[in-house]
Amino acid sequence: MAFQGKKLINNPDDVVTEFIEGLVETYPGLQYLDGFPEVKVVIRADASGATYDKVAVISGGGSGHEPAHAGFVGEGMLTASICGDVFASPSVDSILAGIRAVTGPMGCLLIVMNYTGDRLNFGLAAEQARSEGYKIETVIVGDDCALPPLLGIAGRRGLAGTIFVNKIAGAAAAAGLSLADVAAEAKRASQMVGTMGVALSVCTLPGQVTSDRLGPGKMELGLGIHGEPGAAVADLQSVDVVVSHVLKQILSSETNYVPITRGNRVVLMINGLGATPVMELMIAAGKTVPKLQLEFGLAVERVYTGSFMTSLDMAGFSISIMKADQTLLQRLDAPTKAPHWPVGSAGNRPPAKIPVPLPPSRSTKSEESLSRPLQLSEQGRILEAAIEAAVNAVIVMRDSLNDWDSKVGDGDCGSTMYSGATAILDDMKKYYPLNDAAETVNEIGSSVRRVMGGTSGVLYNIFSKAAYARLKANSDSTVTAKQWAEAFEAAIDAVSKYGGASAGYRTLLDALIPALSVLKERLTAGDDSSTAFVLSSEAALAGAESTKDMQAQAGRSSYVSAAILATVPDPGAMAAAAWYRAAALAVKAKYEKASS
Amino acid sequence: MAFQGKKLINNPDDVVTEFIEGLVETYPGLQYLDGFPEVKVVIRADASGATYDKVAVISGGGSGHEPAHAGFVGEGMLTASICGDVFASPSVDSILAGIRAVTGPMGCLLIVMNYTGDRLNFGLAAEQARSEGYKIETVIVGDDCALPPLLGIAGRRGLAGTIFVNKIAGAAAAAGLSLADVAAEAKRASQMVGTMGVALSVCTLPGQVTSDRLGPGKMELGLGIHGEPGAAVADLQSVDVVVSHVLKQILSSETNYVPITRGNRVVLMINGLGATPVMELMIAAGKTVPKLQLEFGLAVERVYTGSFMTSLDMAGFSISIMKADQTLLQRLDAPTKAPHWPVGSAGNRPPAKIPVPLPPSRSTKSEESLSRPLQLSEQGRILEAAIEAAVNAVIVMRDSLNDWDSKVGDGDCGSTMYSGATAILDDMKKYYPLNDAAETVNEIGSSVRRVMGGTSGVLYNIFSKAAYARLKANSDSTVTAKQWAEAFEAAIDAVSKYGGASAGYRTLLDALIPALSVLKERLTAGDDSSTAFVLSSEAALAGAESTKDMQAQAGRSSYVSAAILATVPDPGAMAAAAWYRAAALAVKAKYEKASS
Repeated sequence: MAFQGKKLINNPDDVVTEFIEGLVETYPGLQYLDGFPEVKVVIRADASGATYDKVAVISGGGSGHEPAHAGFVGEGMLTASICGDVFASPSVDSILAGIRAVTGPMGCLLIVMNYTGDRLNFGLAAEQARSEGYKIETVIVGDDCALPPLLGIAGRRGLAGTIFVNKIAGAAAAAGLSLADVAAEAKRASQMVGTMGVALSVCTLPGQVTSDRLGPGKMELGLGIHGEPGAAVADLQSVDVVVSHVLKQILSSETNYVPITRGNRVVLMINGLGATPVMELMIAAGKTVPKLQLEFGLAVERVYTGSFMTSLDMAGFSISIMKADQTLLQRLDAPTKAPHWPVGSAGNRPPAKIPVPLPPSRSTKSEESLSRPLQLSEQGRILEAAIEAAVNAVIVMRDSLNDWDSKVGDGDCGSTMYSGATAILDDMKKYYPLNDAAETVNEIGSSVRRVMGGTSGVLYNIFSKAAYARLKANSDSTVTAKQWAEAFEAAIDAVSKYGGASAGYRTLLDALIPALSVLKERLTAGDDSSTAFVLSSEAALAGAESTKDMQAQAGRSSYVSAAILATVPDPGAMAAAAWYRAAALAVKAKYEKASS
Repeated sequence: MAFQGKKLINNPDDVVTEFIEGLVETYPGLQYLDGFPEVKVVIRADASGATYDKVAVISGGGSGHEPAHAGFVGEGMLTASICGDVFASPSVDSILAGIRAVTGPMGCLLIVMNYTGDRLNFGLAAEQARSEGYKIETVIVGDDCALPPLLGIAGRRGLAGTIFVNKIAGAAAAAGLSLADVAAEAKRASQMVGTMGVALSVCTLPGQVTSDRLGPGKMELGLGIHGEPGAAVADLQSVDVVVSHVLKQILSSETNYVPITRGNRVVLMINGLGATPVMELMIAAGKTVPKLQLEFGLAVERVYTGSFMTSLDMAGFSISIMKADQTLLQRLDAPTKAPHWPVGSAGNRPPAKIPVPLPPSRSTKSEESLSRPLQLSEQGRILEAAIEAAVNAVIVMRDSLNDWDSKVGDGDCGSTMYSGATAILDDMKKYYPLNDAAETVNEIGSSVRRVMGGTSGVLYNIFSKAAYARLKANSDSTVTAKQWAEAFEAAIDAVSKYGGASAGYRTLLDALIPALSVLKERLTAGDDSSTAFVLSSEAALAGAESTKDMQAQAGRSSYVSAAILATVPDPGAMAAAAWYRAAALAVKAKYEKASS
């Protein structure tokens, strides 16, 4: 059960330096100090210590928590980030190099997470830098609320709340405040924030074996960010229950870790631990906000959801809650160029949801136009005859179509087409406005949509809607043969585009495309309409028959061998040819009758 | 081996609606249509269809790809996102609702990923919306380069390249372009981009069992984003090798999927698939850029690294490469309020690295001041005597300290302190500038740092540096007793702050804090300096002895039982008391000798 952890890396010893190289390739506003492998420091490309006229704000610590802290370097947030090896504090020399690179006459604030190694190394670097004449302040952040309180800060680890402290200090520095004032704001922020995490998996160090400490169906509560075991192991529960537990722990009046009481304003961070999808983080955010409002009586002013302070590839998240006031919100909202600080969390909050817009009213439409006319126009009579002939042609072909389809598809082509055809026949009698050709074509689409499932239902619906839109663009209510051809072309184009097929794909288009081609050709040549339609319907039939020789490129038939395909034509193409031919013949018959 | 996939969710059927609720809680600039569970549409809170005076840009598709597409809704990118169920195309009604909600007189562009369901449903919605009078264009994106080319677009899936198309269309719309022009830019972008992915794990659908298709040590190449198997399974290799393979496939002149040739300008996206840490994505970015430059002769204009188009909790990434020109770069760089579009990728590219700043020159310093003076001042003689007495007191205690430490710690306290003490003695003889008290204290720190490991080495170094910084702030070279006391206080404060301990924690502070307290008290009371030092050193001894009754709060002793702790004093405290007492007695002896 213990496997080498899978990672897309090169040499496990190089993960931090290679991370920094990629970070700087991604963000041209960042640079690093040329001191690999010992010195791993990311700095703002636009802030040189010699001339920097603001307080420098530096954070850092062990790596493995990306994007923290290097991804938060940028105007308005950190001036530099000092990166240690994975889960190991950076060396004093590396911290000193960072301080020297970015600290100007206004001095430097070091924001240190509460781990012994970081405290000692940053502390020593601070003292050394002071002895070199730099003005230095340090703030230590311990926001963990998982463990029972001990004396002092020893038991409170620095977690994702540190990101808030970084932002607030960075914004205060950008506003031109003195070192003492920036440090005071950072310290105040660090005392306002509490964090607790939950994990579904243990993280794997680069090049190491994955621990099987956490079995299936289990989760850990109250963990650190270095793979250390959580305060408790529990059965995995719904995120609703998990969030409730975590909030109770952070806001406990017994431990009193954060000075937050009913009626306070707060900001919230839902922080992914490295392998948690955005979907799950957002679900947690959506559940946390109403709980804070309703169960704890807090006003949630901002929500930050994302992966900010991670633990390599750990699945899970932490929740951080910080007491907020106007000053602090202003610092959080202040613009920053730090690439990983989340955008879009500030701003006025409109209602979360708005009504679904109503479709164009149907009832009005049906009263006005959606009923079978009492008296059919000549065009209406021809249209009725054509539709009736077309659907009857499909109806009589049901078994043949099913038979062909059973050899190359799922065997329901005939039944599906039959449903559509009978629905059209029924609906036409009830309410098709036959004197309005465009609206009638539209209603054919609606009939089809109501009863025909599968891809063919959608495609015929698209066919009708596209033809309708084209016909409707005409100003005159009488449709010419040329206009019918244009509508036919628009319909074929739409089916080709959305269905993804073209001529030769062994689909209904192999009947319709040749038909369209001949129709246009004959009309241009000056043939009368009914002759042109009939000639084009012969092309449709020929095209449908020719599908026997085609390899399928779309739909289920594309998985069937050429030998089998050669025994039958494409049923969809045959159905299309059949209704088109029947309609053409019906039109011709009507014209002949009218002129006889 | 097949387990229920672990996720922090509630009912698996509600993941999409709960995701949307959380998204909208996080970003006040977003709203959703009140049509759950059928209609799942995220829209810009500031764009109402009735009055919207730009082309609306809509994308969408199955869910499970978060943040795509809902996280890209915002001014300058998408106007709305239509969310289907996980890996399922949204319904026509839901797409129509989105179109109706945001489309104004300028019309609407639908950006559709090339999957049959999406093509059909968006296609039908487009035709329906047109029939309602809306101006609609659609662009279908198929950027997949994993599979051998087929006729048409059927084989090319829509992948992360769609994000580029969304951004370019959104920026063109925001610039006020007509629907035809926005659609033309989107289409052109869709033809310029190629994508291929690599995965280390299979994604798990909410509430489903995790597939064990991909074993330990294996990866899949050329995969889709719906959990379908990749084009090939291979042994896991270094990311360097993986990147080379993927680039060759995307840029193959044989398949000619993207019109990119040597000398072209390109932009790059490294896209995490859901469970990939930022560290790994950045490593891939850092390796991809130089390969594109050196092996393919391309100018890489922008790099976008992050998780944009995911596949639930899949580990791995995709690489997208798009041919770029000035227009296209302008669209990518245009500002947007879409919360998940990456910031910080634009801008001039300075050198990636700059030299590590040099520390203040040591050689100069040592020539000037770092040598033992030929002639010692009175203060220099007293300082020499005090240091000598102090280190000798520690040297003689080596075995006792080790003995105590073996009961409550790791048994090396005496040896560690002995190393430091002998180093100080040696270095003092060689080069301590004893007439300059501040610099001498600084050098004590350097001697300690050179030889003493562990926490105690760092803490004594911090102690020296803090005292030095304080002493150096004095203008006069003669140090008064009050100034020594101030330096002592600064040193204790620094050790307490960075070491994390206070009085009562059973550490060296339990000797030093009482000593400082008595020293300040006696000096204020008007005692002469040497008397004050000696009295304070008695307090140090008493304090160190009292540690027997303390429960440890810091360091290794905190894991030892009270019964054992009661048998010995804290060795660190005893060592501190010993050197302080010896120094005080030596000072007193010197003064008595001087005045006798």
